[in-house]
Amino acid sequence: MAKRLFTSESVTEGHPDKVCDQISDAVLDDILAHDPTAHVACETFTTTGIVTVMGEITTKHYTDIPSIVRRTVERIGYTDPAYGFDYRSCAVMTAIDEQSPDIAMGVNQSYEHQEGGTDAADLIGAGDQGMMFGYACDETDVLMPAPIDLAHKLARQLTDVRKSGKLSWLRPDGKSQVTVEYGDDGKVLSCPAIVVSTQHDPDIALKELREAVVEEIIKPIIPAQYITKDTKFYVNPTGRFVVGGPVGDTGLTGRKIIVDTYGGSAAHGGGCFSGKDPTKVDRSAAYMARYIAKNLVAAGLCRKCQIELAYAIGVAHPVSVLVDTYGTGVLDEEKLSAIVNECFDMRPAKIIEHLDLRRPIYEQTAAYGHFGRTDVDLPWEHTDMVEKLKSYL
Amino acid sequence: MAKRLFTSESVTEGHPDKVCDQISDAVLDDILAHDPTAHVACETFTTTGIVTVMGEITTKHYTDIPSIVRRTVERIGYTDPAYGFDYRSCAVMTAIDEQSPDIAMGVNQSYEHQEGGTDAADLIGAGDQGMMFGYACDETDVLMPAPIDLAHKLARQLTDVRKSGKLSWLRPDGKSQVTVEYGDDGKVLSCPAIVVSTQHDPDIALKELREAVVEEIIKPIIPAQYITKDTKFYVNPTGRFVVGGPVGDTGLTGRKIIVDTYGGSAAHGGGCFSGKDPTKVDRSAAYMARYIAKNLVAAGLCRKCQIELAYAIGVAHPVSVLVDTYGTGVLDEEKLSAIVNECFDMRPAKIIEHLDLRRPIYEQTAAYGHFGRTDVDLPWEHTDMVEKLKSYL
Ligand SMILES: C[S@@+](CC[C@H](N)C(=O)[O-])C[C@H]1O[C@@H](n2cnc3c(N)ncnc32)[C@H](O)[C@@H]1O
Ligand SMILES: C[S@@+](CC[C@H](N)C(=O)[O-])C[C@H]1O[C@@H](n2cnc3c(N)ncnc32)[C@H](O)[C@@H]1O
Repeated sequence: MAKRLFTSESVTEGHPDKVCDQISDAVLDDILAHDPTAHVACETFTTTGIVTVMGEITTKHYTDIPSIVRRTVERIGYTDPAYGFDYRSCAVMTAIDEQSPDIAMGVNQSYEHQEGGTDAADLIGAGDQGMMFGYACDETDVLMPAPIDLAHKLARQLTDVRKSGKLSWLRPDGKSQVTVEYGDDGKVLSCPAIVVSTQHDPDIALKELREAVVEEIIKPIIPAQYITKDTKFYVNPTGRFVVGGPVGDTGLTGRKIIVDTYGGSAAHGGGCFSGKDPTKVDRSAAYMARYIAKNLVAAGLCRKCQIELAYAIGVAHPVSVLVDTYGTGVLDEEKLSAIVNECFDMRPAKIIEHLDLRRPIYEQTAAYGHFGRTDVDLPWEHTDMVEKLKSYL
Repeated sequence: MAKRLFTSESVTEGHPDKVCDQISDAVLDDILAHDPTAHVACETFTTTGIVTVMGEITTKHYTDIPSIVRRTVERIGYTDPAYGFDYRSCAVMTAIDEQSPDIAMGVNQSYEHQEGGTDAADLIGAGDQGMMFGYACDETDVLMPAPIDLAHKLARQLTDVRKSGKLSWLRPDGKSQVTVEYGDDGKVLSCPAIVVSTQHDPDIALKELREAVVEEIIKPIIPAQYITKDTKFYVNPTGRFVVGGPVGDTGLTGRKIIVDTYGGSAAHGGGCFSGKDPTKVDRSAAYMARYIAKNLVAAGLCRKCQIELAYAIGVAHPVSVLVDTYGTGVLDEEKLSAIVNECFDMRPAKIIEHLDLRRPIYEQTAAYGHFGRTDVDLPWEHTDMVEKLKSYL
């Protein structure tokens, strides 16, 4: 049997794409707090000296976007002009329209209703076409794949240590990457390669930086038994990373969709999450798909599970539902599909209701992953369908 | 056995995200035509009335970005102020920096060389960390999954029919989506659901539009045997799609990465392609991974194959290589991995050389998919390693 190596990556909240995701979701939260049924599609980009917020937003709430941008950039830590980017001095521009009335028509009154239907649960049409995947597996306690779970923990540790002040030369931008070696039984054997790059003050020596990152970031996070004599550490492999954040790399909302989800261990439909209200199935149906997959694994119906949902714009019912257990199901997949269809209602109005998505809960999801989180309470991580699912056994 | 339904989507060249991808790659091509070793990371966004081009570009060539933007938007077909967006009257803004000198250091002189190495093939360090996947399967002649292949053909047909003038009320923006039913043997049985949304002139009746799209777009493309009495057609399910393009939806480069690749049938590492020169492994290594997977399937070494490559920024050698044949290999995976490592050199300098990537070949990839194309000659689609691979049988 060949060694099976799999690699996933994560980034810190100071990464320019993640800065944009967090701003888009901070704007969304501000609107939802005042106007829960607002339609929001909020995109952000940032490059040297500027943040621009754009998109399609229909709401009665007045949103002070420049304040939200500055508050978010300050929380992240771009607080010193020496970093090249600073929350006080960056320019903030906006270019926002209302949602297209043609799209609003399909979302507010679904195809089913346009064709004469009257079921209230059919009223909201999907905000777009597309496919969304949800995944869960028993590799970790949080039922996430190990590589992305470890990569997120490293990224979080970079931020925690920076904000604690312990390594005073750390700056906000950073990335992590973990290669995992799996055994024949699918268990994690070791981490053959770990990559950490962090932005830093100019006056720290490369050697000192590399040692400190191994000691303070990597070792406290990666379980000792995964580090072998062959494990390769790549810490700031370019040799220098003083220029960072939006100065080093232009950021855009929705450009870290694999970091946001399963690190490549599962499929992805392509739609991003941040800045989107829950009538956008890119977000709400992906959360639902994770919820379904996680509950199936937690109930012991399978050890690994991928759900694909697909929608047509303006239509409430999904056009396809796929349950794939990679052969790990204790019931056959036809039976499992029937159970999923019986227990979970996948129409947008029902997803929004069941997961209670019309609340300002999104900014906290916009860094360190939308799934498998233990630091925040996310409804799609609840395993409250386990009892019901077990009754089918 | 459960019916296995899988859905993939595509979009036309007039979709706002794809407009951005094409502009980013048109800028890249203009630069590479004059300066093949330029470093380019070009991002675009567009919303009502405006296109903004940003990023990090280091080149000696002078690029007239506004002209490139207008030429690209004209080619796509936003040529009439009545569409709400017009190549002559839209604003064009730019915000471009040089590549960060800290990144350039790692790309121009890899970690291997910084540590004392002298192998010329090691000289170029990977332009970023990350994972890239390549995939191929024997579902279609072009060794692509059927759902994305059919979705692209529908999107292309929308554009071809529009540009031919046959349905004069078609406008540039559009999307397609195909649900495929697979049999136990993995063969395509039928298409249970097909979604097509197209932007249109205001004066066409919905009924007439729906009939014309079924007759002129769907039926000429989807093989008749896949259309059954149960096939559902959703044509413009919102009921109206006059507002479209950048007016209906803000577009950004790199937001159609699943459309660009395998439609969700394979994994994705998260990095996008458009606007990136080939020192960025997000692009070049994903092309290489497809090339490897396609040649393995074409040589008959397996029927289905996914390759994962992973890199550390500034390092030439990949940190991990995974060959997964889903059990379809005629040799075991350890042996196949060894063959892949022997036949394919995955260092950036070697990928660039082998696939001849320092040429202006990218704009043509920025709509209708980067893989499985037959209308354009893309080096990573060549099956020129088949003879060599067959020698291992
Ligand atoms: C390498 S940049 C992407 C390429 C970039 N747009 C360019 O033009 O080269 C991607 C991310 O890498 C990180 N990064 C930036 N500068 C770096 C450096 N000098 N060394 C290591 N990582 C760096 C940042 O998190 C940044 O957002
Ligand atoms: C539905 S929009 C995404 C959501 C949008 N940002 C919003 O605020 O509602 C995504 C894509 O759908 C297509 N689209 C736009 N208007 C549409 C309509 N009225 N009916 C069907 N599809 C439409 C366009 O291709 C557009 O880029």
